[in-house]
Amino acid sequence: MFPLPILPENGPTFLISPSPQASVPSNNTPDDTVALATEAPAIDITNVEAAEFENLGSTLETIVNGTTTVGGQAFNLAQFHLHTPSEHRIADEYFPLEMHMVHEAGDGSGRIVVVAVLFQLSDDGATTTDLLTAATQNIADVEEPGTVTETAPLDFAPLIEHLASTPLANYTGSLTTPPCAEDVTFLVARQPLPLDVATYNKVKAVIKFNARFTQNALGDANLLDQTALANLVAAGAEEEGVEQSLKAVSEDESKVAAATNESVAAAPAPATNAEQLYALSSKLQEVDSAIHEIIG
Amino acid sequence: MFPLPILPENGPTFLISPSPQASVPSNNTPDDTVALATEAPAIDITNVEAAEFENLGSTLETIVNGTTTVGGQAFNLAQFHLHTPSEHRIADEYFPLEMHMVHEAGDGSGRIVVVAVLFQLSDDGATTTDLLTAATQNIADVEEPGTVTETAPLDFAPLIEHLASTPLANYTGSLTTPPCAEDVTFLVARQPLPLDVATYNKVKAVIKFNARFTQNALGDANLLDQTALANLVAAGAEEEGVEQSLKAVSEDESKVAAATNESVAAAPAPATNAEQLYALSSKLQEVDSAIHEIIG
Repeated sequence: MFPLPILPENGPTFLISPSPQASVPSNNTPDDTVALATEAPAIDITNVEAAEFENLGSTLETIVNGTTTVGGQAFNLAQFHLHTPSEHRIADEYFPLEMHMVHEAGDGSGRIVVVAVLFQLSDDGATTTDLLTAATQNIADVEEPGTVTETAPLDFAPLIEHLASTPLANYTGSLTTPPCAEDVTFLVARQPLPLDVATYNKVKAVIKFNARFTQNALGDANLLDQTALANLVAAGAEEEGVEQSLKAVSEDESKVAAATNESVAAAPAPATNAEQLYALSSKLQEVDSAIHEIIG
Repeated sequence: MFPLPILPENGPTFLISPSPQASVPSNNTPDDTVALATEAPAIDITNVEAAEFENLGSTLETIVNGTTTVGGQAFNLAQFHLHTPSEHRIADEYFPLEMHMVHEAGDGSGRIVVVAVLFQLSDDGATTTDLLTAATQNIADVEEPGTVTETAPLDFAPLIEHLASTPLANYTGSLTTPPCAEDVTFLVARQPLPLDVATYNKVKAVIKFNARFTQNALGDANLLDQTALANLVAAGAEEEGVEQSLKAVSEDESKVAAATNESVAAAPAPATNAEQLYALSSKLQEVDSAIHEIIG
């Protein structure tokens, strides 16, 4: 197994994909730049009296069966699991909870489809999504990683109705947990479902924090890719825009330090050298390629 | 100014300090490994009828005056601002909101003290901290970065009482926003204050997401430092523990992919080569040193 430092050393932030597509952004900010699915997926999930509910250490997962048809192809639902806070953002805003419904193709091709549903806390603190309440009913039994319990009866009809009636952002990304497989079809509901505070607090107390850091928008550099970071550093030396935005941030947000901590504010602005930085970036790319060679 | 890619390209995750102390962990997970302040700071803040409330793009800030005495030294309170989600975690758990009260030394030494207060949503959705409600009363006026409004009357007594009666985690870190000054004294209240959903949702809708990614525990490698990451990769090749934990995560969380996506599950486990990885890590360190030379 690829020896990237993952859990528990670094938490989920550094879950980068080992494949060469590592620099492909994965879980993005669905906004107007992300295409919407042109047709709603046809979702069929049988209601159950109880399902297995597991604490995997990295997430809380419910084992369910169903079939989702996307673009004429059938995908089998295997489980849904939770992330807090959300891994996707809508117009830059994060949400307190996100559910991932993970499917694989019925034709044995290995294709994966993840239907993602965001949750927003209700202003009254109580209005919620009953499916989530039922799924987490026995959460007190699974406070320890590796433990398993059962859900209350699960009625999927309201969820299916929601997914049939809300726009779905549609893009190709990767799984956000190891092995971070690429070429995963994501369908992200742009309208969140309601969530009550008690359920949120209970889930958060068990999960703690399990969101991979949200990537840049599609087409932008992968935030977790070192080569991309080096390129951005190099580009920053040339692009006035970056310096300007940096300056603006520095000027307003750090007002106090600037006004009062002379030693910080007066630190000389270093002379940047784009050529040197480009050369370094190129070295980093070599190192990165070598690493990829080693890890196959 | 140091041309690291900061906002808006990468969001707050990559706010690393430009100083050589960049690898010093900054905003940590206060848990039992973080010392508690041995004496409560003496906090004196004058209640006001109204204060300036600004949207800085990167945060929402309230301009206030006060004096906090820490270890016999007086620090002047200049502002408090908000982060969502929290930048600190308690026993690994994040919180929906965090307030930073930023002080600088009255003696002109430039020393900075940040008193951090976490907020937890109340199960009833309504119980809250009145100071926060008052501070954000006119938030609808400052939806755009660069806009300013006024708060409702601010009564600091309950906050001061809370800080006098709850244990405070005490460590030296850095500012979490540019210029990310080092040697900042953090005092983090281990008990959160209550927060109502309506205020949380309003603040989140304006701020969107402005938490720097939480660092490792004190003494562990800085998550945002590339050399440290390379070292962790190298160490991972040798330390069975890392591989074991990785394997566990991979086995349970990616159950679906493993069970159903043969091409993913059957990807050969690459033979790792600790020596090669160490060599690469050492090259990365050279590159890092060179970068630091360039940027001064």
